[in-house]
Amino acid sequence: MAKTLYVINPNSNTAVTAGIDAAMDVLRQNDGPRIECVTLAEGPPGIQSQQDVDHAAVLVRQFAQARAEQAAGFVTACFSDPGLHSLREIPGVLSMGISEGAALTALTMGNTFGVIAILQGSIARHMRAWAAMGISSRVAGEVAIGRTVAELSDAPATLAAMIAAGKDLRDRLRADVLVMGCAGMARYRDALQQEVGLPVVEPSQATVAMALGRIRLGW
Amino acid sequence: MAKTLYVINPNSNTAVTAGIDAAMDVLRQNDGPRIECVTLAEGPPGIQSQQDVDHAAVLVRQFAQARAEQAAGFVTACFSDPGLHSLREIPGVLSMGISEGAALTALTMGNTFGVIAILQGSIARHMRAWAAMGISSRVAGEVAIGRTVAELSDAPATLAAMIAAGKDLRDRLRADVLVMGCAGMARYRDALQQEVGLPVVEPSQATVAMALGRIRLGW
Amino acid sequence: MAKTLYVINPNSNTAVTAGIDAAMDVLRQNDGPRIECVTLAEGPPGIQSQQDVDHAAVLVRQFAQARAEQAAGFVTACFSDPGLHSLREIPGVLSMGISEGAALTALTMGNTFGVIAILQGSIARHMRAWAAMGISSRVAGEVAIGRTVAELSDAPATLAAMIAAGKDLRDRLRADVLVMGCAGMARYRDALQQEVGLPVVEPSQATVAMALGRIRLGW
Amino acid sequence: MAKTLYVINPNSNTAVTAGIDAAMDVLRQNDGPRIECVTLAEGPPGIQSQQDVDHAAVLVRQFAQARAEQAAGFVTACFSDPGLHSLREIPGVLSMGISEGAALTALTMGNTFGVIAILQGSIARHMRAWAAMGISSRVAGEVAIGRTVAELSDAPATLAAMIAAGKDLRDRLRADVLVMGCAGMARYRDALQQEVGLPVVEPSQATVAMALGRIRLGW
Amino acid sequence: MAKTLYVINPNSNTAVTAGIDAAMDVLRQNDGPRIECVTLAEGPPGIQSQQDVDHAAVLVRQFAQARAEQAAGFVTACFSDPGLHSLREIPGVLSMGISEGAALTALTMGNTFGVIAILQGSIARHMRAWAAMGISSRVAGEVAIGRTVAELSDAPATLAAMIAAGKDLRDRLRADVLVMGCAGMARYRDALQQEVGLPVVEPSQATVAMALGRIRLGW
Amino acid sequence: MAKTLYVINPNSNTAVTAGIDAAMDVLRQNDGPRIECVTLAEGPPGIQSQQDVDHAAVLVRQFAQARAEQAAGFVTACFSDPGLHSLREIPGVLSMGISEGAALTALTMGNTFGVIAILQGSIARHMRAWAAMGISSRVAGEVAIGRTVAELSDAPATLAAMIAAGKDLRDRLRADVLVMGCAGMARYRDALQQEVGLPVVEPSQATVAMALGRIRLGW
Repeated sequence: MAKTLYVINPNSNTAVTAGIDAAMDVLRQNDGPRIECVTLAEGPPGIQSQQDVDHAAVLVRQFAQARAEQAAGFVTACFSDPGLHSLREIPGVLSMGISEGAALTALTMGNTFGVIAILQGSIARHMRAWAAMGISSRVAGEVAIGRTVAELSDAPATLAAMIAAGKDLRDRLRADVLVMGCAGMARYRDALQQEVGLPVVEPSQATVAMALGRIRLGW
Repeated sequence: MAKTLYVINPNSNTAVTAGIDAAMDVLRQNDGPRIECVTLAEGPPGIQSQQDVDHAAVLVRQFAQARAEQAAGFVTACFSDPGLHSLREIPGVLSMGISEGAALTALTMGNTFGVIAILQGSIARHMRAWAAMGISSRVAGEVAIGRTVAELSDAPATLAAMIAAGKDLRDRLRADVLVMGCAGMARYRDALQQEVGLPVVEPSQATVAMALGRIRLGW
Repeated sequence: MAKTLYVINPNSNTAVTAGIDAAMDVLRQNDGPRIECVTLAEGPPGIQSQQDVDHAAVLVRQFAQARAEQAAGFVTACFSDPGLHSLREIPGVLSMGISEGAALTALTMGNTFGVIAILQGSIARHMRAWAAMGISSRVAGEVAIGRTVAELSDAPATLAAMIAAGKDLRDRLRADVLVMGCAGMARYRDALQQEVGLPVVEPSQATVAMALGRIRLGW
Repeated sequence: MAKTLYVINPNSNTAVTAGIDAAMDVLRQNDGPRIECVTLAEGPPGIQSQQDVDHAAVLVRQFAQARAEQAAGFVTACFSDPGLHSLREIPGVLSMGISEGAALTALTMGNTFGVIAILQGSIARHMRAWAAMGISSRVAGEVAIGRTVAELSDAPATLAAMIAAGKDLRDRLRADVLVMGCAGMARYRDALQQEVGLPVVEPSQATVAMALGRIRLGW
Repeated sequence: MAKTLYVINPNSNTAVTAGIDAAMDVLRQNDGPRIECVTLAEGPPGIQSQQDVDHAAVLVRQFAQARAEQAAGFVTACFSDPGLHSLREIPGVLSMGISEGAALTALTMGNTFGVIAILQGSIARHMRAWAAMGISSRVAGEVAIGRTVAELSDAPATLAAMIAAGKDLRDRLRADVLVMGCAGMARYRDALQQEVGLPVVEPSQATVAMALGRIRLGW
Repeated sequence: MAKTLYVINPNSNTAVTAGIDAAMDVLRQNDGPRIECVTLAEGPPGIQSQQDVDHAAVLVRQFAQARAEQAAGFVTACFSDPGLHSLREIPGVLSMGISEGAALTALTMGNTFGVIAILQGSIARHMRAWAAMGISSRVAGEVAIGRTVAELSDAPATLAAMIAAGKDLRDRLRADVLVMGCAGMARYRDALQQEVGLPVVEPSQATVAMALGRIRLGW
């Protein structure tokens, strides 16, 4: 149990990593693995395109491979799960992606889930992922808040946009559960849940919680 | 965290409950909820039919409703998830079923999973459940070992039958992961995994691990 | 042909049973089985939750098992088909559920059907059922009228609500056929069909008609 | 009720029509519509290709249009349902196809059904039909007996081939129900069911039974 | 390469054929097959119903069979692909349908496509076709412009209706690509694409382009 | 038309590029774009894992971006379509992947296609891709020949293994069409088709043919 669960922020934005790291506190346990959140300094400033995802996939795998000895596991903490299936080719270590973990968690909380995406341009990519996972019939839809990385730093406006998207998912697309389609925004989760009145899945927390269970079981 | 996670064996077979309880030890933590495995004495001796499932569903809900105050959560620990959707109508407490939790865990371990069922007659019921969950495209298939409750007590023969079923799932149906379609048999998991050479999901452990994560997050 | 086709109203509301019974008159034939509509006095006053469905499932099976000798068949006449798969475990007798029979009938009347549900909270349960049946791609959607059991006794308001829901299914969700998602309301069928201009399936009638065909064939 | 339900054999083989007609006897009722089985003399001798189906579709529609006044309904009695969707464009009269009616009936008798096809070359056409109906997930598969029209007249050999196909569907493809993928062979149904031990759906009977129910309801 | 690729307009409207023919110019090559667009004089004036489709299917096959010797291939150029599967039974020659070719092309241009249909009554027929092809999950939906054959001759109004439908597909149904659900209207393609801002697939061009590739490869 | 269609072999094996290049000859036309097959010298020697795919995706995109000005289009010529969705983010140029193009072509040649894969370990990756494309229901299955890059140079043994795999896809999985799941092996296509008796799709040719059609149309 001296090993480390690496939660990899594949973009170079340390504020995002800090947001993830803070969200991990509730999951840290004395007898569990160390949870270390890392920033990939070579990564793109934000992951907004398939090009970014592919680039990040390579970096995530490189990082992981260098840490495989001391790793209890790896979580790729961007909602496009960059490098997930490459990580799974490293033998003897578990790997998870935060969109997968969020979706699987959401499936236990209602019949359909809706995703609050950051950018409209990411939705088709997410839809390909849900289809590849075979769970599209449980996806109510996605609504983007359409804010750039710079705009995301305006917290009240960002939360307001997420609440509006959440209400649209609830009322128009009949989602039973909301999934936050981004990493590092756990601080908005409670307000979002309260305002929209649906359960909200924060993907990094959901996924690390699943990973910790697997680590404890030794699977 | 003084609350209890109830793992409910909905049949009246205390040996099954003991098997589940032993499998929980690895998941028990000082700072986690108490994990209590209970036997429903009024339940059928084994859950082999839809009639048994429906009967168990009522009992599971009755049990849970009476414990809702002190409950951190409920897990219905039979592979037909009796009472799962009824449990989810109890507000303010999480509920999981072991086939659902096993399936969701298996989805992170390979492209398709195969289920080792106990009885041939249960497979159609399971198939309805996978379809209702919307994950049928990830199910390689199911193979039954075809042993009665009495015959299950012959451990070497039971393990041998599970290994044979696992190899059939691996070779004929191309499963990447095996799911044990029963509760209380965690003791066979390691041998099964070793003999078949595929990762094996024990459903009670997989599901309780997911539930513990949710409890820690307060979701 | 001296045997009886039991149409089981699994709730304790005798007005519902009377509504079903009246709707059977058109299906009664001299050379067919007796059609007997029964009320389960121990059932819940209305079936509004999964808990109610599970409870009703046990009662429906108990009733049927006691009548198996004299039964030509059983129809579980609540739109959640309580006990259907348990009834099917009784050998030598056919069993049908009214949501299944309604859906299969609707599939022959248009490309997609929409369901007028009573309560919003039942829709997720119905959606699980359509998915388990493997026919989700033919379901345009469901719209609830949101009326309590007490409010349903106001006939004009109930019909108006059903018409509004039917028009929403027609115009927004592009349903080709309407299915009434409730038992005992056959008296509204003609007005609903006329007002909305789509064919309307009344589930008890549709299902009993299918059952009578099977009985005549001896299947 | 003085109207006629036309069961249209779209091929020119009067022996097939006679087989269908005999199978209707059990469904004929004093207070029901007249059931008239007709042969389309201009039709192909057997319907073995898409070309045959398209040709038959035109003939079936022509026949029906000329009889629309006196018709209680139309059943296109070839397993490729020639003309079905064209028939449905004739207002005020119900139309059914025997593969659709057989499939919908089979869905109430087990989780998956298997089809005993006559020719290997028809299977892809059937598969397109199941997909168009949205029920592919309930189809275990199809097995062809591979006998020409001439060879079909050898009754013992034909029955033996159907039994062999049925056992293959049962054992290899795990079908719960068998559907006879042809018209006019109702006389083999009981032996087939007895030998294979699965419920068998004869498509003309299944479909006419459904149509009679709809006619009685006036839908 | 002296052979001919026949593009068959199965209706009797020579203006439609002329529209298709003009759209072929860009695809004609010195070293490619002759592309001949033909009108089926016996065909219906427009293909608006399943009855029309079935009728056209027979005519298309008759035409093709008579030309099989000199044919490099056949394209059935109506958006319901009349006769497509019958054409494919002619050995040694390739056959394509324009809705199939349009859809397959659209799949390479975005995640989902929307179809601009001419008549509301055709949409269910198209939906059956997408389901039979197994690609329904990529179809955003269809919107009909609802103009009769006579009204289609008013070019500005027709284009305006297509633009309106395209914007509805883009904004409400979130289509990434538009498919023109008709033959002979290639002249509207560029304006439609420019006004709506989504890539537009003209089905005859898309399909003949695919056919020419197959012919060149000799497949 | 002075522009170039780049067919990118993302591995560093020039023999593979030469194989692709030879297969392009039949598609080269005087009035078409130049077709240039390139080797990515930095690419992995063969693309055998998700890690290889992700690495190749970055290289393919880098190559394309540098050539965007002079490009008529890009084809990523490895059966895992590395970089396809990233290429599609480059505005004003079409991009295709050879597994996508092969699959779409195969869909016009039979009801289901089977894939001859090189390595067993690639099949799950392909299955994710078919699911993401939404066409899984048309995939009969995949069979791997299980030969390493070194072993592939033994042409007779490789062809024999492909024939054996093709027959298995034909007989056991009932594929109607075969897709060669690799680039650079067009020379085996005719023998494979002849020996197995099913139409065979060579993916680079199929995809470049589709791309050439799009280029000619200016889409």
